[in-house]
Amino acid sequence: MPTFKVTLAYDGTDFVGWQRQAEGVSIQGVLEDALREFDRSDVPVTGAGRTDAGVHALGQVAGFTLARDFASEIVVRALNAKLPETVRVLSAEEAPASFHARFDARSKTYRYRIWNGDVLTPFERRYAWHVPAALDVDAMDAAARLLEGTHDFAAFQAGGSDVATTVRTIGQSTIRHSPSAMIEYDVTANGFLRHMVRAIVGTLVEIGRGRRPPGWMRDVLASRDRSAAGRTSPARGLFLERVEY
Amino acid sequence: MPTFKVTLAYDGTDFVGWQRQAEGVSIQGVLEDALREFDRSDVPVTGAGRTDAGVHALGQVAGFTLARDFASEIVVRALNAKLPETVRVLSAEEAPASFHARFDARSKTYRYRIWNGDVLTPFERRYAWHVPAALDVDAMDAAARLLEGTHDFAAFQAGGSDVATTVRTIGQSTIRHSPSAMIEYDVTANGFLRHMVRAIVGTLVEIGRGRRPPGWMRDVLASRDRSAAGRTSPARGLFLERVEY
Repeated sequence: MPTFKVTLAYDGTDFVGWQRQAEGVSIQGVLEDALREFDRSDVPVTGAGRTDAGVHALGQVAGFTLARDFASEIVVRALNAKLPETVRVLSAEEAPASFHARFDARSKTYRYRIWNGDVLTPFERRYAWHVPAALDVDAMDAAARLLEGTHDFAAFQAGGSDVATTVRTIGQSTIRHSPSAMIEYDVTANGFLRHMVRAIVGTLVEIGRGRRPPGWMRDVLASRDRSAAGRTSPARGLFLERVEY
Repeated sequence: MPTFKVTLAYDGTDFVGWQRQAEGVSIQGVLEDALREFDRSDVPVTGAGRTDAGVHALGQVAGFTLARDFASEIVVRALNAKLPETVRVLSAEEAPASFHARFDARSKTYRYRIWNGDVLTPFERRYAWHVPAALDVDAMDAAARLLEGTHDFAAFQAGGSDVATTVRTIGQSTIRHSPSAMIEYDVTANGFLRHMVRAIVGTLVEIGRGRRPPGWMRDVLASRDRSAAGRTSPARGLFLERVEY
């Protein structure tokens, strides 16, 4: 009964999200289907982060326990043979039977990509939010850094959430221009609220467009009021980059 | 009756190629449809390179003459509003009435991308050929450089072609490893035969896998025999990068 920790990349465009739903195709669903075929048993899979519909992953982590014994390389190969091309197992390693992909995660890093050019290149149409307006990236970066540390992030939580606390600790929160028209926001935290990164990015873009000064981020944070922050940015720009244990 | 020279990028995955066909959707077709709607006249479009089905472009060039007068920025904006997200007009400029996108082109540069890792990342599945076997990039580069200069490239021409001469001049032909698992082949020439880049890449991969020495490229070239070269590599890895006038 070996337990495995696997690292996954996926293009979330055509999925309803990580989690199995009544309707539509989920990442968890295609993974559990592939495992059932391979291990000939029902194998429940736990993911580190429950990414929403359209959100991508470069390094999602999932855990499961098989009924039969297999080497890690076989797990990688067999799953990739059965999974759609949009979902890939990058690596697998044996883990203690107690391993839990979500509860054991110490921190997660997300990246959000904004295409800041007049014309969105077709090759990024699924992988970035197109903001053609001029953006002051230095102002955005100053605002992004104000989020570092331990704060109540209630202002950046989607409605309808039910969590014990909205306090989280952000280790790093920075934004920078890449050599192309791409602007990349990187954020690491011990946990994220629902739509938190996308609400932060919507707020950063308000600041980048000059509608608000960088210090506004502090006011939004202090308000603990979702309606004080910017709008939720589109899912297509968001990537779960890695999970640290 | 202004004539325009436009630069285009497109994801060729879901197209039958540049050229209008009896069946399926072509780049030329969607462009002519958009122009008809915009200019309210039939506007024939000429492309610099007739890319095949599944081949992409970062900088294809096309020319057309409109019945009505428009500023370049309006042409860009109006076409992008009508074109599918997979085809984008990057820029437009007025050109002399005599401008011909194909005949006036002095040289074209293609890039071919090979993903040389165990697992193909989902984000490159449409934009690279997956070759998991170990490749000797130095040997491939030595072979690629043997193609520079003026040669008869008949060995790299797809069957069924009917051209006056198979002699072409390659300015640059080099291959290198990018920081990721991507290997990129860049080739500039005054003209390309049908499937020429893809046949060269198939040959380079034979050399990269160690099945043949770099000098084999010279023998293949001298043979002028398509069956002497490697197989045609998949269209998905090929990009028309730019056209020089």
